[in-house]
Amino acid sequence: MSELRKDPVSGRWIIIAADRAKRPQDWRFKRQAAEEKSCPFCEGNESTTPPEILAYRPSDSPKNGPGWRVRVVPNKFPALRIEGELNKRGVGLYDMQDGIGAHEVIIETPRHETTLTALSDENVEEVIHAYQLRLADLKLDKRLRFVLLFKNVGLAAGASLTHSHSQLIALPTVPRNVLLEMQGARDYYRFHERCIFCDLIKQEIEDQERVVIEGEEFVSLEPFAPRFPFETWIVPRHHASHFESMDPLTSAGRSRMKEFAQILKTTLVKLERALDSPPCNYVIHTSPFDVEYVEHYHWHVEIIPRLTRVAGFEWGTGFYINPVPPEEAAKFLQKLKV
Amino acid sequence: MSELRKDPVSGRWIIIAADRAKRPQDWRFKRQAAEEKSCPFCEGNESTTPPEILAYRPSDSPKNGPGWRVRVVPNKFPALRIEGELNKRGVGLYDMQDGIGAHEVIIETPRHETTLTALSDENVEEVIHAYQLRLADLKLDKRLRFVLLFKNVGLAAGASLTHSHSQLIALPTVPRNVLLEMQGARDYYRFHERCIFCDLIKQEIEDQERVVIEGEEFVSLEPFAPRFPFETWIVPRHHASHFESMDPLTSAGRSRMKEFAQILKTTLVKLERALDSPPCNYVIHTSPFDVEYVEHYHWHVEIIPRLTRVAGFEWGTGFYINPVPPEEAAKFLQKLKV
Repeated sequence: MSELRKDPVSGRWIIIAADRAKRPQDWRFKRQAAEEKSCPFCEGNESTTPPEILAYRPSDSPKNGPGWRVRVVPNKFPALRIEGELNKRGVGLYDMQDGIGAHEVIIETPRHETTLTALSDENVEEVIHAYQLRLADLKLDKRLRFVLLFKNVGLAAGASLTHSHSQLIALPTVPRNVLLEMQGARDYYRFHERCIFCDLIKQEIEDQERVVIEGEEFVSLEPFAPRFPFETWIVPRHHASHFESMDPLTSAGRSRMKEFAQILKTTLVKLERALDSPPCNYVIHTSPFDVEYVEHYHWHVEIIPRLTRVAGFEWGTGFYINPVPPEEAAKFLQKLKV
Repeated sequence: MSELRKDPVSGRWIIIAADRAKRPQDWRFKRQAAEEKSCPFCEGNESTTPPEILAYRPSDSPKNGPGWRVRVVPNKFPALRIEGELNKRGVGLYDMQDGIGAHEVIIETPRHETTLTALSDENVEEVIHAYQLRLADLKLDKRLRFVLLFKNVGLAAGASLTHSHSQLIALPTVPRNVLLEMQGARDYYRFHERCIFCDLIKQEIEDQERVVIEGEEFVSLEPFAPRFPFETWIVPRHHASHFESMDPLTSAGRSRMKEFAQILKTTLVKLERALDSPPCNYVIHTSPFDVEYVEHYHWHVEIIPRLTRVAGFEWGTGFYINPVPPEEAAKFLQKLKV
């Protein structure tokens, strides 16, 4: 018998159709080799990207030259641009505005590594710090409302280059999925006067059914109602509504950042080993710019290995059919040695 | 400059990033041949499917034998089953219920055709009528709330068999995307006391910028804020909240059904010619079971050619980046001779 499960935050329902399942080890990905000539993200090729916005480099190394460790540049083919006015307008009954925003690439390493997990812990920490600095900078722009930090790995997950990189898109409007998630969390808070994510972590740690890694400050887990096989979330155990509130200039923030870098890397290593480095996306879910610290929302990361195909049913309903019960995926990932 | 556009019904925003675009003719699909041994949907192989629920066949031909024109059977690997109780329950803070519902396959032709467009007009009409009959039957089941009728074409769009077929999934809960669409349409109605779809069709027919085919009773068009290149909608020009209200037993209903079959087929032919038979999904958007005739909602079909990849940005936001302006796609499709 399959099961219907409701994501308590977004209100999204999913179907766990375990009858249709293969075993966890049968989900291993059959890789297509991507062909690449010269990589624009490698050290020495700095002139092939737009000029850098931010770089971690020794103070004596020249901008847009070699020597950097993490480098942030505008996307060469940006979906949105920073120059101009919003120019909001109606066209008959329709609403539109100009494509103002930002679209940046975080190049995570000067070497041609194809996965974040090949980086040192310190390198991963610098990547996360670069996310925060860019977010803080873009937050000053009053035209913008939200920044999405995300990573696409593999052609099938939307990455056109293999060199390990993340992206950010800053938007002049709070997107629907973020609004729905905030709204679901607020509804729960109004009823219970507690944060739904805090409650959820408590329940998950008690149950131990869907936990992958239980850290001091973070937990990595399979959500109760995952859209996709091996969908995995990383959630801070302490309440925090904004990703950028993890401040590495304080000693508490620094140790949190360190642990976050480790749990992110270890979770990704486990998924790579379990599924043979599948195409993958991760997304940082955090509060919009116009929201100060709130009691009801809780930032976290959602990792989605791309193993199934989205078809008519999913487009029409927002319902997902997932053949792998999260309890099974969690058990498999938890046991996996790294 | 890219543009942000808001879908007026769902509230979903999209980005038209035409700078990133190839020309319409560059979107042609590079096909992978699917390998198939014996096809379970072909005439003569009736015993390889579960027993039929409905068939268009001469009255003297035996059930589950040859002679049929359209045949509806349960999905052999159903996501949901009709037997049992909902058994709604809480698990700590989570909600769940048993996987009750229906998952059926509409086999559109006894011959091994791989596209609906190879079928005669009468055959397509029978397929649509079969959709309606199954919907009407499932509506009698008080445990169910919504039926999604949809079609997946091609492996990349989720079809595991090439023989032309559609599917339906009946659900015990109204899915989120349907709720959001109904809610958006209701909000507009409250403000304007007019149906947003009726207004939208009027504006589109006046503008002629996004119309693909203008029929007597239906119009096929590129929506103002399409998620995907060449996303195409077919909308009835008369107000109707329920797909099943098009009653072929009345003469008005019969001529509507005939025209709907034609415009669906011609629109699909145009997309096939324009894009070299890409993987594709279509979905019938209609009112849930618990909604009687309403003034604010309007059934329609959404066709999605699967030419782009959904990546981290789309998963995180529900925002879509579409490199093809719908005005360009409409012009291209409109001119195309069929």
